[in-house]
Amino acid sequence: MDLIRYIQDNQENHLNELKEFLRIPSVSAKSEHKADVQRAAKWVADNLRAAGLDNIEIHDTPMHPIVYGESLKAPGKPTLLIYGHYDVQPAEPLELWTSPAFEPTVRNGNLYGRGTADDKGQTHIHLKAIESLMRVYGRLPINVKVMIEGEEEVGSKSLEDFLAKNRKKLDADALVLSDTSMLAPGVPSITYGLRGLNYFQLEITGAAQDLHSGVFGGAAPNPLTILAELIAKLHDRNGRVTVPGFYDDVASLPRAERKALNSLPWKEKDFRKTVGARDLNGEKGFTVVERLWTRPTLEVNGIWGGYIGEGAKTVIPSKASMKFSCRLVPDQDPKTITRLVEKYIRGLLPKTVTAKFEVLSTGKPWAAPYTHPIFQTAQKALEEGFKKKAVFIREGGSIPLVTQIYDTFKVPCVLLGFGLPDENAHAPDEHIRLENYFGGIRAVALFYQKLGEMQAAPAR
Amino acid sequence: MDLIRYIQDNQENHLNELKEFLRIPSVSAKSEHKADVQRAAKWVADNLRAAGLDNIEIHDTPMHPIVYGESLKAPGKPTLLIYGHYDVQPAEPLELWTSPAFEPTVRNGNLYGRGTADDKGQTHIHLKAIESLMRVYGRLPINVKVMIEGEEEVGSKSLEDFLAKNRKKLDADALVLSDTSMLAPGVPSITYGLRGLNYFQLEITGAAQDLHSGVFGGAAPNPLTILAELIAKLHDRNGRVTVPGFYDDVASLPRAERKALNSLPWKEKDFRKTVGARDLNGEKGFTVVERLWTRPTLEVNGIWGGYIGEGAKTVIPSKASMKFSCRLVPDQDPKTITRLVEKYIRGLLPKTVTAKFEVLSTGKPWAAPYTHPIFQTAQKALEEGFKKKAVFIREGGSIPLVTQIYDTFKVPCVLLGFGLPDENAHAPDEHIRLENYFGGIRAVALFYQKLGEMQAAPAR
Repeated sequence: MDLIRYIQDNQENHLNELKEFLRIPSVSAKSEHKADVQRAAKWVADNLRAAGLDNIEIHDTPMHPIVYGESLKAPGKPTLLIYGHYDVQPAEPLELWTSPAFEPTVRNGNLYGRGTADDKGQTHIHLKAIESLMRVYGRLPINVKVMIEGEEEVGSKSLEDFLAKNRKKLDADALVLSDTSMLAPGVPSITYGLRGLNYFQLEITGAAQDLHSGVFGGAAPNPLTILAELIAKLHDRNGRVTVPGFYDDVASLPRAERKALNSLPWKEKDFRKTVGARDLNGEKGFTVVERLWTRPTLEVNGIWGGYIGEGAKTVIPSKASMKFSCRLVPDQDPKTITRLVEKYIRGLLPKTVTAKFEVLSTGKPWAAPYTHPIFQTAQKALEEGFKKKAVFIREGGSIPLVTQIYDTFKVPCVLLGFGLPDENAHAPDEHIRLENYFGGIRAVALFYQKLGEMQAAPAR
Repeated sequence: MDLIRYIQDNQENHLNELKEFLRIPSVSAKSEHKADVQRAAKWVADNLRAAGLDNIEIHDTPMHPIVYGESLKAPGKPTLLIYGHYDVQPAEPLELWTSPAFEPTVRNGNLYGRGTADDKGQTHIHLKAIESLMRVYGRLPINVKVMIEGEEEVGSKSLEDFLAKNRKKLDADALVLSDTSMLAPGVPSITYGLRGLNYFQLEITGAAQDLHSGVFGGAAPNPLTILAELIAKLHDRNGRVTVPGFYDDVASLPRAERKALNSLPWKEKDFRKTVGARDLNGEKGFTVVERLWTRPTLEVNGIWGGYIGEGAKTVIPSKASMKFSCRLVPDQDPKTITRLVEKYIRGLLPKTVTAKFEVLSTGKPWAAPYTHPIFQTAQKALEEGFKKKAVFIREGGSIPLVTQIYDTFKVPCVLLGFGLPDENAHAPDEHIRLENYFGGIRAVALFYQKLGEMQAAPAR
């Protein structure tokens, strides 16, 4: 039977199975969802087994399990390490979802639900591509090692240890994963650059306890104001991060690459519409595409302190807190940046307060030479699967795994993105376009098929 | 029977009854406590009846009831309007209370619980002073109109209407209330000045929905940063509020008053210890006492936005919010200040965001001529009740009722404070010193007895 025909005929089965996967609220950041995360790991393991993979394992870690399966029955053919993650972001604020976050729902050609785009839907594309090849040909044209983790949204800490301890077992000619986006609808894309991510939390304390703003206001330090004054000092009027040394290791963008990125079929008008704010902002001297993909940032992700309930409470709180993060670009080093940021912040705070600075996670930036043969094969498969021209792009997000793998194995990493930038990954009403989900299964199956026509170790 | 002896003999009864009152979580700011607030109103009405007052009423309002009772059987003697409030501040953060907020507990000579100092404990002092006079003499030496409201912590909105509609019924020679603090332990105090309070809420919106900080970070406006940058502009480096015109109507402090205030037995060392921060701050050019009692402020009372749960979420939120308030001093006008603050804030915000500015409550500042005879009588009663020298002070807090009453009736307002500045009103572990609670009952009973020796309308 024809591969593409088989995939076409099984669309409904694939979609129903994905919905089942999405219904498990595997939120890795929240301890109350620990059992759900484990349930999702078991679901993945069962699915790998059903697809025909061997040596399925649910590998326990100090936090959330890593699921592994393999098929190594194509001697002389390339071996791929295929990565995905089954954990998802928290769904809050729940009241802003049109349909519930964990009840996947199709509307207007989109599948809505937490994890549809990031990353259950995209992980499922690979599982179904493998399964389809197995069903149609009775075996895979290449060797695969599939590794699906449960900590991507909280920094992939356990993975580092797993990679180090299983270096030989995981060895491959290339890494393949789908946790990124297409540039735009109808533009299949291969991502060759990602930003790194350092995530911090800061708590500052003024008075020993909350104070009445009437009795104490005017003479007691207000940590909310002091935190705000700190944040206001973290960017200059040109939108540049003021942390000394922050930009020192940023590699300058080659002229040709800069031109290529700015020539992509990417429309600022569409981006503005997706954001939906009255205007954009950012670092002066760079285009929006450059700001998003090639420049580092410092963003506050959450802030809280004092009375935030209904009505009025006249309090000067003891504490104020924020979560904030830096997106990093080559060749910034996460450890150096952490040191610079903490030192700068401690130096800016007045002596009226004390500060607790925590590093919640760190991740390196990454960029690949996209002229390598495996990238060309991927491009051809995408063009055939989608019947559209495929492009090479960078992304502003972070996948710590990519740098970890690259640092461990020094093999090419091929990032095939089937999401879209306006699909609300990390926000309410996350969704994936069904045509990209189905097109993704076709393209990935074709990619694996085409790689089967190459000899082993195309990457070395 | 001797009045003081009777009060002494009934300390245990009084305390047990107060605990019953404190167990009702009458949080006026939270709609979920509406029934509790009504229960507290009923408790007050029953208590007034038991004390021997007549014409008890629970007066319904659009928000929370006002309880009224009177005794008008002393012809030719002064008539007092006695005010208190039975509503309390929210108890959050609950985890910081040593014993639960609504389970009153005695430790080290203090009674702990929400409302002990502000204002159930102090209101109860007046109820028990009246009851004691009734029990000992069979009648009151003066005429009293007792009015206990349930919206003090949320701006006393309904009271304005109640005063306007019952102008004649509430007419009196003076207003007496206890919702303030003693200057220090062992220093009985009469408060002659209060700050006003305008309470605001601001919500700013950037993107139409929450955004992924990787995909959008660097080019989309971050309302958290923008809110912080706004807050940072609200004070200058000398701790002065930067709102244009903010200080225009502030009356300058007479030299003699300034000297008197700075000569009070008030110790900055103790204040620093109470605050418990590493240092104080505030407006340059003024002593701490002056900053607290005679200078206006702008304080952020709460701030929130983005992800504030456990772990990390890489989000650029759509919205950021804050609650903030201005303490006002004579002769600032709350309406003018509201207009100036809103205009200034809207002008400071960048065009990337929209803003919703709300006024939650407003209240005028107040200061009285403390040389009036009724103040001298109060001072004598305090000195006799506490066996200590009593002083005249100002306070930084706000009691909107005082200005409302003053504007309506133009009669003296006598503020007898039995709290202490370190008793955590509005914070966890709120408490009142038992010796001040019991001393308060003695002093207030003596005050009413001494006023009975005067002729009617001592104030006019």
